[in-house]
Formats: sequence, C-alpha cells, structure tokens
Amino acid sequence: MLFYPEAISNLVDGFNRLPGIGPKTAQRLAFHVISMKEGDVMELAKALVNAKRHLHHCSVCCNITDIDPCRICNDQSRRRDMICVVQEAKDVVAMERTREFNGLYHVLQGAISPIEGIGPDQIRIAELLRRLQDPELEVEEIIMATNPNIEGEATAMYLSRLLKPVGIKITRIAAGLPVGGDLEYADEVTLSKALEGRREL
Amino acid sequence: MLFYPEAISNLVDGFNRLPGIGPKTAQRLAFHVISMKEGDVMELAKALVNAKRHLHHCSVCCNITDIDPCRICNDQSRRRDMICVVQEAKDVVAMERTREFNGLYHVLQGAISPIEGIGPDQIRIAELLRRLQDPELEVEEIIMATNPNIEGEATAMYLSRLLKPVGIKITRIAAGLPVGGDLEYADEVTLSKALEGRREL
Repeated sequence: MLFYPEAISNLVDGFNRLPGIGPKTAQRLAFHVISMKEGDVMELAKALVNAKRHLHHCSVCCNITDIDPCRICNDQSRRRDMICVVQEAKDVVAMERTREFNGLYHVLQGAISPIEGIGPDQIRIAELLRRLQDPELEVEEIIMATNPNIEGEATAMYLSRLLKPVGIKITRIAAGLPVGGDLEYADEVTLSKALEGRREL
Repeated sequence: MLFYPEAISNLVDGFNRLPGIGPKTAQRLAFHVISMKEGDVMELAKALVNAKRHLHHCSVCCNITDIDPCRICNDQSRRRDMICVVQEAKDVVAMERTREFNGLYHVLQGAISPIEGIGPDQIRIAELLRRLQDPELEVEEIIMATNPNIEGEATAMYLSRLLKPVGIKITRIAAGLPVGGDLEYADEVTLSKALEGRREL
C-alpha cells in the first residue's frame, strides 16, 4: 500500500538524505513545501541548483567561492603576512564574524583523523605548502584555528612540526572557558586548559 | 562585509525559511548541498517543484493528492460507512500505518483554536457536512481522530454536537498510556484519562 502520492514521497526522500534530517522532519518539511507559495518553492529550487553550479573551491585558499581567487584572497586591503588555517569553509565565516582577523585563510577541508582513515594527504596541506613558497607572499605567522578536539589538535600539531623548520611563527588559538560561561559547569578538560593558558593581568 | 558568496546566502536563507530550521542548520545544509553530487541536487530541486505543482487537495476528503478524487476515496475495496476525521494530511498517513482502519477519511486541515483565531469556518467542516448529504454514502460512524490536546478536543466536541442530531454514531479515539510507556513517568492528565477510559478484561 502506497501511503503517499509519489510527488510527496520523492520530496520526503530528498529531504531525508540531507544530514541531520530524519524521516519525521523530512515529512514535516515536505508537507510545508506543499503549503508554500509556488514562487517561494521555485526560488528554493533555484537556490539549490545555483549553489551547486556556481560554487567551487578557491584555487589559492581552498575556501568555497563563486569567483577565483576568492574575495578574501583578492582583497588588497588585507594583511598578507598572516594565514589563519581552518578546517572548513564555515569556520572562515565564524572567524570573519569576529572582525578581529584581517589576514588570509587556508581551508584544509577536513582534519587528520586516523580513526576515519584521513591522513595528511587527504586534506589540503600540500596546497598550503605551495602557497608558502610564493615569493610575493611573505608569511610571518600561521594561526592554527582548527577545532579544539582530538582531530583538530592532531592536525595543528602535525602542521606545526612540518612548518617550524621553515622558520615561520606558528600559533594556536586559545582553549579555555567560553565567555559568559560558568566555572561550575565547565568540564575538567576545558578548565585545565584554561588554567594552563592563564595569562598575567 | 559580505561573508558568503550570494549563491550560498540565497540557499541558507531558503532553508532558514523552512519550519524548525534555524540559521545554524540552514548553513550546515547549504554547505552539504555544495558537497553533494550535481545529479542529486537537481533531483531534490525537481522533487520540490513537482511536489508543489502536482499536488492539491482532494475535492472529497480534502487530503493531499495528485489525482482527484484521491486514491483512498477512489478505492472501492474500502468501507464507505465509516469516516475517520483527522486534522492534517500526515495524520492520514499515521492512521494508514496502523493497517487497522479500512474506511474513508476527512482532513479538516486544522483544528478549532480560539487563541489563534481559527473558528469552525476556517477548517474543512462545511465539506464534511456536504459529504454526509451524499445519498450514495451511508455513513454509520464518524471517528474523531483529532489530536488529544485542547484544540483537537474542542474540534471533536464541536463536531460531535453538530452531528449528533443527524443520528450518526460519533466516536473518539482513546486517550491513555502509550504502549511501551511507563506508569511512573506518565503525566497526571494522561494517567487520569487512562483511568477514566478503563475497560473490563
């Protein structure tokens, strides 16, 4: 017995294949689409196709972009002596939101993870090394802004050992208590990191 | 400062407008779409447009359908003397999954809710009354399967008062403890409903 018309079940299946969307949410979304204005549905469908068609990776920093090199790599007002290394394109967005960093980025598109079989060759490390050989770019500092978890730390450690001999300053973003957080509810690892990273006032 | 290329931000906005999808999830979904195969993205976009274009409400039972009358209304093997009244098209799917009901449905497309300003005229009650006047359809029982909350109960009560004088048997699905549940964790209202609805063994 077919519970749905095919046009719904196709859409439910489509939503269900997206990450973090289970069958119940997929069904709710599909029924919502049916109640949307036709123009809005067309717009969403177009946005999907456009996002896929017009976006690719920047040939310099590996960020997601619609022009090549990307806007950040092209921006002559940015400092070219600092590169912030992040795991994913969305991490660039997070960093940009702080408005505190005005240098360049490098997006690794992942992190080293022996458990998942991801080694240094599977992420964009070779591209970073190639960039550092560019004589126009005089990089003085590389900020490791990979995630503060096992994979991110391993990636930062691997890269710092690889790059130290080149004579570039390698730094790591601080781990500690989140601002607005509460000491009482902090986990031991974060708290010991915060203690370890204490600075004189 | 524009953080994203337009093609991404359009898609993020599109996802963000769907119910229950906040800005973070919308961003995650958009980045996932970029990493999907082009064929799969095209398929999802097509499913969206098709769902909107090919679906409408059944002129008999108000369920969502691609043919009119819908498959259930057309199905000659189903009993035509029972109508199960539900709030939404997805409730029909939930009922069908039980494989316990073989009659017809009526989808109200909502419930009476004075707080939200939804009265009897805003939901498909008139359509139900019109159906009951059909001489071919000899309805003997109407099962109220609206949700067991304030709006659903109010709707069931309203309809039963409206239909009782017509001489049709009106029933309400049972409220009680969910199967597999635990008495200890049941809320008082559910437990008292379960007690009230007790049956002899």
